[in-house]
Amino acid sequence: MAIHQHVLNLVELCVRKGLRQAIISPGSRSAPLTLALARHPEMTTRAVADERSAGFIALGMAQQLRQPVIVVCTSGSAVYNLAPAVAEAYFQEIPLLILTADRPKDWTHQQDGQTIYQTEIFGKHVKRSFELPADFIHADARWFAERVTNEAVDLARTEPRGPVHINIPLREPLYPTGEETFQYGPVRVIEQVTAAPALAPETWHQIQQEWETAERKLIAIGQGPHDPALLAILKKMSDEWRIPVVGDAISNLPRNDEFGTQLDVFLGGTDEEMNKELVPDLLITCGQSFLSKQFKLFLRNHQPRSHWQIQPHNRLADPFQSLTRLIPYEPAAFFEKLFSDIDYQRFVSNDDDDSDDHFQENWRALDRKATRLVSQFLKDDAVFHEWAVIQRILDALPVESQLHVANSMPVRYVNLSGLAEQQQVEVFANRGTSGIDGCLSTAVGAALTTDKVVTALIGDVAFFYDRNALWNSLVPPNLRIIVLNNHGGNIFRIIDGPSRQPELDAYFETAQPLSAENTAKDANLVYTNVFSYGELKTALADFFTTGDSAKMLEIQTDRRVNAEQFQRYKQLVQDTFRGI
Amino acid sequence: MAIHQHVLNLVELCVRKGLRQAIISPGSRSAPLTLALARHPEMTTRAVADERSAGFIALGMAQQLRQPVIVVCTSGSAVYNLAPAVAEAYFQEIPLLILTADRPKDWTHQQDGQTIYQTEIFGKHVKRSFELPADFIHADARWFAERVTNEAVDLARTEPRGPVHINIPLREPLYPTGEETFQYGPVRVIEQVTAAPALAPETWHQIQQEWETAERKLIAIGQGPHDPALLAILKKMSDEWRIPVVGDAISNLPRNDEFGTQLDVFLGGTDEEMNKELVPDLLITCGQSFLSKQFKLFLRNHQPRSHWQIQPHNRLADPFQSLTRLIPYEPAAFFEKLFSDIDYQRFVSNDDDDSDDHFQENWRALDRKATRLVSQFLKDDAVFHEWAVIQRILDALPVESQLHVANSMPVRYVNLSGLAEQQQVEVFANRGTSGIDGCLSTAVGAALTTDKVVTALIGDVAFFYDRNALWNSLVPPNLRIIVLNNHGGNIFRIIDGPSRQPELDAYFETAQPLSAENTAKDANLVYTNVFSYGELKTALADFFTTGDSAKMLEIQTDRRVNAEQFQRYKQLVQDTFRGI
Repeated sequence: MAIHQHVLNLVELCVRKGLRQAIISPGSRSAPLTLALARHPEMTTRAVADERSAGFIALGMAQQLRQPVIVVCTSGSAVYNLAPAVAEAYFQEIPLLILTADRPKDWTHQQDGQTIYQTEIFGKHVKRSFELPADFIHADARWFAERVTNEAVDLARTEPRGPVHINIPLREPLYPTGEETFQYGPVRVIEQVTAAPALAPETWHQIQQEWETAERKLIAIGQGPHDPALLAILKKMSDEWRIPVVGDAISNLPRNDEFGTQLDVFLGGTDEEMNKELVPDLLITCGQSFLSKQFKLFLRNHQPRSHWQIQPHNRLADPFQSLTRLIPYEPAAFFEKLFSDIDYQRFVSNDDDDSDDHFQENWRALDRKATRLVSQFLKDDAVFHEWAVIQRILDALPVESQLHVANSMPVRYVNLSGLAEQQQVEVFANRGTSGIDGCLSTAVGAALTTDKVVTALIGDVAFFYDRNALWNSLVPPNLRIIVLNNHGGNIFRIIDGPSRQPELDAYFETAQPLSAENTAKDANLVYTNVFSYGELKTALADFFTTGDSAKMLEIQTDRRVNAEQFQRYKQLVQDTFRGI
Repeated sequence: MAIHQHVLNLVELCVRKGLRQAIISPGSRSAPLTLALARHPEMTTRAVADERSAGFIALGMAQQLRQPVIVVCTSGSAVYNLAPAVAEAYFQEIPLLILTADRPKDWTHQQDGQTIYQTEIFGKHVKRSFELPADFIHADARWFAERVTNEAVDLARTEPRGPVHINIPLREPLYPTGEETFQYGPVRVIEQVTAAPALAPETWHQIQQEWETAERKLIAIGQGPHDPALLAILKKMSDEWRIPVVGDAISNLPRNDEFGTQLDVFLGGTDEEMNKELVPDLLITCGQSFLSKQFKLFLRNHQPRSHWQIQPHNRLADPFQSLTRLIPYEPAAFFEKLFSDIDYQRFVSNDDDDSDDHFQENWRALDRKATRLVSQFLKDDAVFHEWAVIQRILDALPVESQLHVANSMPVRYVNLSGLAEQQQVEVFANRGTSGIDGCLSTAVGAALTTDKVVTALIGDVAFFYDRNALWNSLVPPNLRIIVLNNHGGNIFRIIDGPSRQPELDAYFETAQPLSAENTAKDANLVYTNVFSYGELKTALADFFTTGDSAKMLEIQTDRRVNAEQFQRYKQLVQDTFRGI
C-alpha cells in the first residue's frame, strides 16, 4: 500500500467516473496528487506554472468537454490564484474538480511555509467544498474519502454544473521511496443515476393556457453553446407560429433572416412609441446571461406580463426583474413538447393561432434595418478603427471554427456585429464574472480539446493581464490570437461616464505602451503586426491556414479614433431608429 | 453634496487618520472611489492594471511605511485577484486597507456583469471584513459608514497588523456630472489611543525567576525589519551575559562575531551528541517566522524546558512545538527591562550570573566554522553555479540598500550566506505565505517608498509568474532586478523527494525556456545578460550606480550544475560537522 493510498484511490475513482484530464501546477505538498495523476495510464496530465492561468486553461477545457477537468495546486497562496477561474466557472456553470493540497490542519497559522486557511476558501463560488482528513487509521476515514470523491465528481456535473473543491491535507513523507509501486484502488464507485426534471400534466396544462392567452410572445436566448436541437425547434416556432426569437452573439444564435441578433443596435435608438410595440405579453428565456445592455434596459423598463425562464435546474436569477415562472426543464425538450402539445390541441379543437403577426414583423424589420446600418457603417474604409477591423476578422473566420471573445470591448463589438449563419462559428466568452483575467487562458484550454481553429479575439489590457496563458509548453498550433491593441482600456473612453472625467487617461483608460510582439516571440508564435485595412487583408489571407505553431495577429488602432467612430455609430443609430 | 458623499467622507477620514497612499486598479464600478482618492489633494494615487500585482505593490509600500496603504479595485473577479496579496499581508502582518467596489447586493448572482459574492470574500485572511450599505437615506447608515471607516483604519495598524477589508456596494450613477464639485467631509475622527501591553510586577517576578533558574538560555529572532534598539540590547545580553543570539537572514540579524546566523548550515551536519550540547533550557524568541528548516527540526526534536515568545500581541503560534509562555510585549522593551531588572537584582543580592559559559561558545564556534565553510565553498570559481553567483551579488550590494529576496531558492541561498554587518543591508521576503506570486511586485512597491537602492533577487519561475509587476508606469529608477535564470523550478531538483521521481522534469521542475530579456525591454529596463563569473564581475561594477531607469541583470545557470554543487555542499557539511 502506498503512503498516500487514499490519493491513488481518489484518482482511480475520478477515472472510473470518466474524468480524463488534469491541469497540474508544480508544488511539493501536492506531490502525492501530481504523481498519482501523472502515473495513471488513463489520465492526461499537463503542467502550468501560474495557477491563475492554470485554472482558466482547465476551465476552457471543461467548457468544451462538458465534463469536470481536474485542477491540482499546492498549498498556500497558490490556491488563491485559482480563485478567479473558480468564480468564473461557478457563474458560467462549468464543471471543475479543484484538488488543493494542504498542510495538515494542525499546522495552520503556525508560521510554517505555504500554509493558509484553505478550508472552504472559495466561499460561495464552489458548489461545495469538501475536506479530507490527514490520517486514515480509522476505516471510517477511508469510507469518508471514497464517498466524498464519488459525490464531488457527480456534483460538479449535475445541473447547475460548476466547480467543486476537495481540500486535501497531506502529511510527510510526500514522495514515495524507490521501491514503492502504485496500486490504484480497489474503489467503490457509487453511480449517480441521471434524472431529468419532469412536469406534472396539470403544470403543462397551465403552461399551455398561459401560452394561448398571450398575444405577443417573445423568445430570448441567453448565453450558451451551439445547440442544434434548440435551434431547430426555435426555427419551427418562428416559421410556423411567427414568434420572434432573439439573442446575443454569445447565445450562438446565428445572424440570419430567422433570428433577431441585432437588438443591441436598434434598442439603442428606438423611441418610447416603438418600444411599446415591442413589449411582449409573454417573454420566454433560456440559457445563461445576456450581453446586450440595451435589451436588459428595454425589458426592465417595459415589463412583460409574464416571463418564463426554462433551464435544467432551480437556481433563480431574474436579470430583467420580470420573472414570473421558473420552469426546470431542458430548453430544447421544453419547446418541442410545448409545440407538439399545442399543435395537437389546436388540431383537436380546430383552433387558430391568435398570435399578433405584426409583432414578429416589428422585431424582424428592426433587425434587418440594424444589420444594414452596421454593415454600411463598417464597410466605410476611410478611417481605420477597431470595430471595422473586427468585422473584417469575423468575415474571415474559418467555417466551423471557434471564436473566444475577450471582455470588455471585443465581446461588445462582436455582439453588435453578430455572426453570419453560413460561417457556423461557435462563440464563447467568459461572461460568468465578465472579467478580463483569464480570457486568453480559456482559449488555450479550449484549443487543447479540439482540432478546429480556435481564435482568441482580445484587447491589449486583457492580453497582457493574462499573458502567462502563453507561458507553458501547451499552446497548440490550432490557436490563433488576435490582439486588438489600442494601448489602453479603451472601453472607458467609449462608455459615457469616465470619458467625461479629467482622470480618464491616468486612472481609467490607463495607457500602456506595449506591443504584444515580444510576448509572441517568447511563446514562439508566428507574429504579424497590422496598422491598416490593406495590411489586415494581406495578413488575414493566410492567418487561419494550418501551421506548425500558433499564430498571433496584432492590430494597432488609435483609441481616440475608435471612440470617435463609436460616437459616430451611436449618432447613426439615433438618426435611424428615432421616430420610425 | 456629491452623489457618493459617503465615499468622499471615507477618503477624508483615511486622510485625517494619516493614510496618504493608494494603489488603484481601473474599473467602472469603483469609479466613485477612484475619483474621491485621485481628487483628494493629500492623497498620492497610482494606477496598476493587474490586481494581483497591484495588491503586492501596495503590500511592498505598506511593509516600508508601516502604515496601511489603500488598495482599490472594481467589482467581480478583480477582487479575487487581490487575494494572494491579502493572504501574504495577513500572515506577514502588514497593514492594508482593501476597498472593493461592489454592485448593490440586490444584484448578486443575477447574471449581471462583474458580480460575485464579495461579502467576507477573503475569509480568515483579513483581520475583519466590513460592508457598507448601498443606500444612505437613514442617518444611521451615515453613522455606520463613518464608524466603520474609523475602526477599519485603526484595526489595520493595531498589533498584529494586517489587512482590513471594506466592501462598498455602489449604485449608479457612478460618475459625477460636470457641475458637481467634491466637498470632502465634514467627518468625525474617532481617535484610538495607542496602548502598550503592561505586565504586572508579579509576572515580571516570575519571568525573572524562570530566567535565573535556566542555565542555558538561547535567544532566537524570527523574521522582522532592521530594529536598532533590539539589536543593541541583544548585543549587550550577548556580551555581558554570554547568551547566544541567533536568527536568519530575514531576521535582519547581521552576520558578525556577535550573532549566530549560520544555523541552517551547521545544524544540517551536527550529530546527536553535539545537538544535545546545543539544546537550551530556556528558549526566548521574538519576531515572525523562521526560515531555517534545520533550526525548526532541531528544536522540534530537542525541546527546551521552557520557551517564551515575546511579541506585541496575543496571537499564538508554536512553530517549534515547544512554547510555554506567550509574553505580549514589545521585544526590545522587554529585553531592556529584563536586563535592567536582573542586573539590579544581582547587584542588590550580590549574585553572579550562573549561566553556562560554554553554551554560547558552542553556538559561536559552530557559527564561525559554518561561515568559513560557506566562504571557502563559494570562493571556488571552477564551476559557475547559482549560490556562488548570489554570494558575489551579496558582496556587491550597496551599503544601506534594501534586498528583497524571492521564494523559493533565492531566500534559502541568501539565508545560508547571511549578510555581513558592515553592508547594513535590510532584507525582506514574503514569508507570510512563502508564495512566489508577488515577490517582484513587492519590491516595486518598496522601491516607491525610498530613495535607497532596492534589489530584487528572484528566480525565473517567480519572475515570470509576477512579470506584470513591470507592466505599469511606476517602476522607479532605484529598482535593481536580478533574475537567476536556471530555466525551471530548480528547488525541486535540489530538495530530496522530487529529485528522485521520474516526473521531476515534467511536473516539478517544469523547464521553461524564456530569458527575461524581452520582458526587460518591454519595461524599458537597462538589461545585462551574464553567463560567467567574469561577466558577472564586469556587470556588477556599475549595476548599482544611479541611473535614469531601473536595471535588470539576468544570470543564466545550469540547473543540473546548481543541484550538483548543492549536493557537494551538503556533503561538505556532513564531513565538517559530523562527529565534532
